[in-house]
Amino acid sequence: MASSNRDIQMGSAWLQRKINLRPQHRGVHLVTDEILKPIPELCQFSVGLFHVQILHTSASLALNESWDPDVRDDMEMMLNKIVPEGMPYRHSCEGPDDMPAHVKACFLGSSLTIPITDGKLNLGTWQGIWLCEHRNHAGSRKVLVTLNGCMRDSSRSPISPVSPMASTSS
Amino acid sequence: MASSNRDIQMGSAWLQRKINLRPQHRGVHLVTDEILKPIPELCQFSVGLFHVQILHTSASLALNESWDPDVRDDMEMMLNKIVPEGMPYRHSCEGPDDMPAHVKACFLGSSLTIPITDGKLNLGTWQGIWLCEHRNHAGSRKVLVTLNGCMRDSSRSPISPVSPMASTSS
Amino acid sequence: MASSNRDIQMGSAWLQRKINLRPQHRGVHLVTDEILKPIPELCQFSVGLFHVQILHTSASLALNESWDPDVRDDMEMMLNKIVPEGMPYRHSCEGPDDMPAHVKACFLGSSLTIPITDGKLNLGTWQGIWLCEHRNHAGSRKVLVTLNGCMRDSSRSPISPVSPMASTSS
Repeated sequence: MASSNRDIQMGSAWLQRKINLRPQHRGVHLVTDEILKPIPELCQFSVGLFHVQILHTSASLALNESWDPDVRDDMEMMLNKIVPEGMPYRHSCEGPDDMPAHVKACFLGSSLTIPITDGKLNLGTWQGIWLCEHRNHAGSRKVLVTLNGCMRDSSRSPISPVSPMASTSS
Repeated sequence: MASSNRDIQMGSAWLQRKINLRPQHRGVHLVTDEILKPIPELCQFSVGLFHVQILHTSASLALNESWDPDVRDDMEMMLNKIVPEGMPYRHSCEGPDDMPAHVKACFLGSSLTIPITDGKLNLGTWQGIWLCEHRNHAGSRKVLVTLNGCMRDSSRSPISPVSPMASTSS
Repeated sequence: MASSNRDIQMGSAWLQRKINLRPQHRGVHLVTDEILKPIPELCQFSVGLFHVQILHTSASLALNESWDPDVRDDMEMMLNKIVPEGMPYRHSCEGPDDMPAHVKACFLGSSLTIPITDGKLNLGTWQGIWLCEHRNHAGSRKVLVTLNGCMRDSSRSPISPVSPMASTSS
């Protein structure tokens, strides 16, 4: 076992903050910047994990294509094909889009855990955070962000928080 | 960047405990209380993350509707529509419900990571933990709970652990 | 509330490392050993969480059957049935397997968070890490591993890292 312990960092800082995302129409939306902007402290974490939880049962979060918006439209099309309206749902009092929204939310999931490296999310080149809005007429969605990690050495020179992403070649 | 560091808490306590959930029939079951009851230490964490892992490959965990049981029945109906029995499965020695159970478990996932705030899970008003039992005749399912977070200041007055959920308006 | 605090451990060590998985053909592949081998430090963590993030949008990670390879083949068959090629996708410039790959990746997810106990992953007897390769001709896939947990007491005798898994009876 040739590895040493020099790669291990010690420390545990926590930050938790609730964010209100702006209302979106039914479909898939890229919200990386909207989630990162209210968390400027991210740049102070040298290594850690960024957890984001949506506090609703009829919308979901996913991590996928950040560039071509056609991917998001195709995803919405496939969600509606795989989980159609018009099935014999018992839970239908809130409209035909309600129960399919719960099913889609279960399949996609309600939280993401994303690695932090050098003050930024460490994602692939084409990865971004999606808000998947499954309701026809939803309001603002709340997400709760929880960061945990090591704080940077404050004696180092500060790093400019220009890009919210670490540059990882895909 | 107007934010200060006053929202950052330091500390890292860990608790890990295995829980045996009681056997359930095939379908979707609300198990929030069954998972939280054996973890009374939760009330001592001021901020953190609550991770729960199911130690099986034919059942899964999801976070969704805690109120209307019709949503859980509709979810079971849709799981069986999307991942039907009677497909040309190779892995069929344990019965027709076996291979669909693996597929459903992959789609829904085998763990949840839930934020902790002020000694409680911080979930949306209508969110609860689901055990999705995909087998016809399953026994008890084991889950492993791992908590990580900051401990409350013990000099503060203790908080009553009446409700397992933080109150978040949906 | 009879429980005491003797089960709580304090500490927080972090390790983060990028791994290049070897290229795989389209389908589902067991990669537990390939992910654990470059992380020999795992044996030093007494309790914690092991996070693994795939840095791509057309492949995914799942946790399921580690024994019977038929389960992985059946999973690939069902992925192709549920998310078929030949749909009216807009995003099709990279070939007919491209957009279905994004949809499958969203459903299965791009990261796993797995508990650590006594220097090993604490999984069920039949659980292993799957790389789900959704593209026909993919290259090497990068994953980023982030460990967080308590380090073992170094005064204890070292434990042999023979098996990467904790033994949990299923």
